[in-house]
Amino acid sequence: MHAVYFELIKEDPRSGARLGKLHTPHGTFDTPMFMPVGTQATVKTLTPEELYDMKSQVILSNTYHLFLRPGTELIRKAGGIHRFMNYERGMLTDSGGFQVFSLGAIRKITEDGVTFRSHIDGSKQFLSPEVAMKAQEDIGADIIMAFDECIPYPADFDYAKKSTERTTRWAKRCLAAKTRDDQGLFGIVQGGMYPELRKYSAEALSELDFAGMAIGGLSVGEPHELMYDILGKTTQYLPKNKARYLMGVGTPDCLVEGVNLGVDMFDCVYPTRVARNGTAMVRSGRLVLKNLEFREDFRPIEEGCDCYTCRHFSRAYIRHLFKSEELLAMRLLSIHNLRFLLKFAEDMRSAIANDTFPEFRAAFLDQYQRTSRR
Amino acid sequence: MHAVYFELIKEDPRSGARLGKLHTPHGTFDTPMFMPVGTQATVKTLTPEELYDMKSQVILSNTYHLFLRPGTELIRKAGGIHRFMNYERGMLTDSGGFQVFSLGAIRKITEDGVTFRSHIDGSKQFLSPEVAMKAQEDIGADIIMAFDECIPYPADFDYAKKSTERTTRWAKRCLAAKTRDDQGLFGIVQGGMYPELRKYSAEALSELDFAGMAIGGLSVGEPHELMYDILGKTTQYLPKNKARYLMGVGTPDCLVEGVNLGVDMFDCVYPTRVARNGTAMVRSGRLVLKNLEFREDFRPIEEGCDCYTCRHFSRAYIRHLFKSEELLAMRLLSIHNLRFLLKFAEDMRSAIANDTFPEFRAAFLDQYQRTSRR
Repeated sequence: MHAVYFELIKEDPRSGARLGKLHTPHGTFDTPMFMPVGTQATVKTLTPEELYDMKSQVILSNTYHLFLRPGTELIRKAGGIHRFMNYERGMLTDSGGFQVFSLGAIRKITEDGVTFRSHIDGSKQFLSPEVAMKAQEDIGADIIMAFDECIPYPADFDYAKKSTERTTRWAKRCLAAKTRDDQGLFGIVQGGMYPELRKYSAEALSELDFAGMAIGGLSVGEPHELMYDILGKTTQYLPKNKARYLMGVGTPDCLVEGVNLGVDMFDCVYPTRVARNGTAMVRSGRLVLKNLEFREDFRPIEEGCDCYTCRHFSRAYIRHLFKSEELLAMRLLSIHNLRFLLKFAEDMRSAIANDTFPEFRAAFLDQYQRTSRR
Repeated sequence: MHAVYFELIKEDPRSGARLGKLHTPHGTFDTPMFMPVGTQATVKTLTPEELYDMKSQVILSNTYHLFLRPGTELIRKAGGIHRFMNYERGMLTDSGGFQVFSLGAIRKITEDGVTFRSHIDGSKQFLSPEVAMKAQEDIGADIIMAFDECIPYPADFDYAKKSTERTTRWAKRCLAAKTRDDQGLFGIVQGGMYPELRKYSAEALSELDFAGMAIGGLSVGEPHELMYDILGKTTQYLPKNKARYLMGVGTPDCLVEGVNLGVDMFDCVYPTRVARNGTAMVRSGRLVLKNLEFREDFRPIEEGCDCYTCRHFSRAYIRHLFKSEELLAMRLLSIHNLRFLLKFAEDMRSAIANDTFPEFRAAFLDQYQRTSRR
């Protein structure tokens, strides 16, 4: 038994949706789940207590950022990331691959690994399967990720094939380099937008002893319809008894479609990033709270929302804070947007449990799309 | 009986220190007290719950800022500032005078009031005793302040005399313009650095029906020794049965000296402003947490501090947040610095109650000054 493992509770008979539990050394959490992102060992603007209050389960931090600053050795000395940032529930780190490959011109890929320059000070750095595993073991999250290449969109077939095969070799090196028994390592399916490469990647990684399976290389610029198509042609080849994590996706329409296609876990900076720009996520779409229409609007962001912000503050007050460039504005909206997605995941779980997920999905998408077209 | 009134509990027989209670419509609070500043209807970066948690009592907001944005009429429509910002304890607003006079070249003073240009959009604005009272009644704090002129330092005697006499006339106009019974109006003693003008101002305002007495025009650039000298030559003429509020002072050495000279209330942006720059207030002075020496320092900011930050996070983590430009850093340090001053006021109250205030003062100043000289 892995330190981290997935328990499949129920499969929806009328869709791909699944209900499950993810067991970790820091607790057992319900899926489908959305994971708030705490890039630099902090979910921007928020304390751990605020995350507990909104019923956050697993949160994510980024190995690339922590590797460069403050350094993973420092986090090891602090007693690991849970102690360092004082978060007592589940944590996941990515491998650094995604950020390194995003650096474009300032990185170089070989079979051994990736040489790149730090975005902070320009210093020369190196990440490989072995270095990424050591870094993630020093950080000490519950769930760690294999070092992969996220294939850009668009990419030609030959490049995608070679990259996907290398990601498979790197996945084996990650498993070989892993030394800690109290962390669960997830493999990452790649394959670009090519169904046959997705099938190859999913099947190759499924044969290996991973604690869970991630789906990478989606939501990288392709149309949503193509993303859903490729996603469905990936999950169909994944084992049922392992958690499936769609990386970097965090709008409610993508969540409901991902769950419909059999995904259990999601993460994205979207809710906190747009929060800091003054955008509130609501069932019908989005509210830009700086707009004049909210100047004397003393209602909460969303009637019935149980978040701290909606229980205590009005749209008019939050607008005032944004117009006055007060940092509390970013906090209040980050709380609302994260709670919105966490609650949305709760609602999806209830729908699956109650055998109403297809109706939930249809009703949500109908309302959401109608508003977005306005 | 005023809606706001002071209850003198004890006078220290060996110093000017006083123990008291300030009664307001939103609760009774202990003096000597430090009041956190929430300039734009928010104590920067913090929620009301965080203020309650650190045992904050009365907080201050600025009429000048609220007058310009979002407008005091909006706050009235919101149900008053307590409801607007969701703070349920005592609140105080200044009159806007201090900020308006700080505008220098872009304001013009007449007997009627002050014409100035908004720092936000350059629009022409007017404040007078009557306008400031209306604005503060719309805002609805428990304690409101008379509209005065804060005399710059240095100022010649003739200017100071004319200004102080006008402040007295404006004080009477404020009392005449006041309509709400559920707010307490404080007068503000001016007089520059001239003891005879301070005596005149203190006595003239003491004859009027104010709920409390503020001391303005100090800590405006003069040496500390001169401030203490003038402060002592002001408080000696103030009535014992009214609270004394030294405006704009917020370092622990000034607090302990102010209490020693008979002051009951203080406010200052200092603790939150330096917090946002990475400076922690401690008994021995200050810590600049960005410094390299704290990189692997896993101790709290101050051993024994009971604030949320010190109970949960290390200097190394807070340093990481500052180096990474994470907003949580500003929150954590704002919490620590405000709790530091609130606890410092608690400790002064205990010392007065236990008849040990002179020893408390001497021990604190000895330690504080020794460190500052390093």
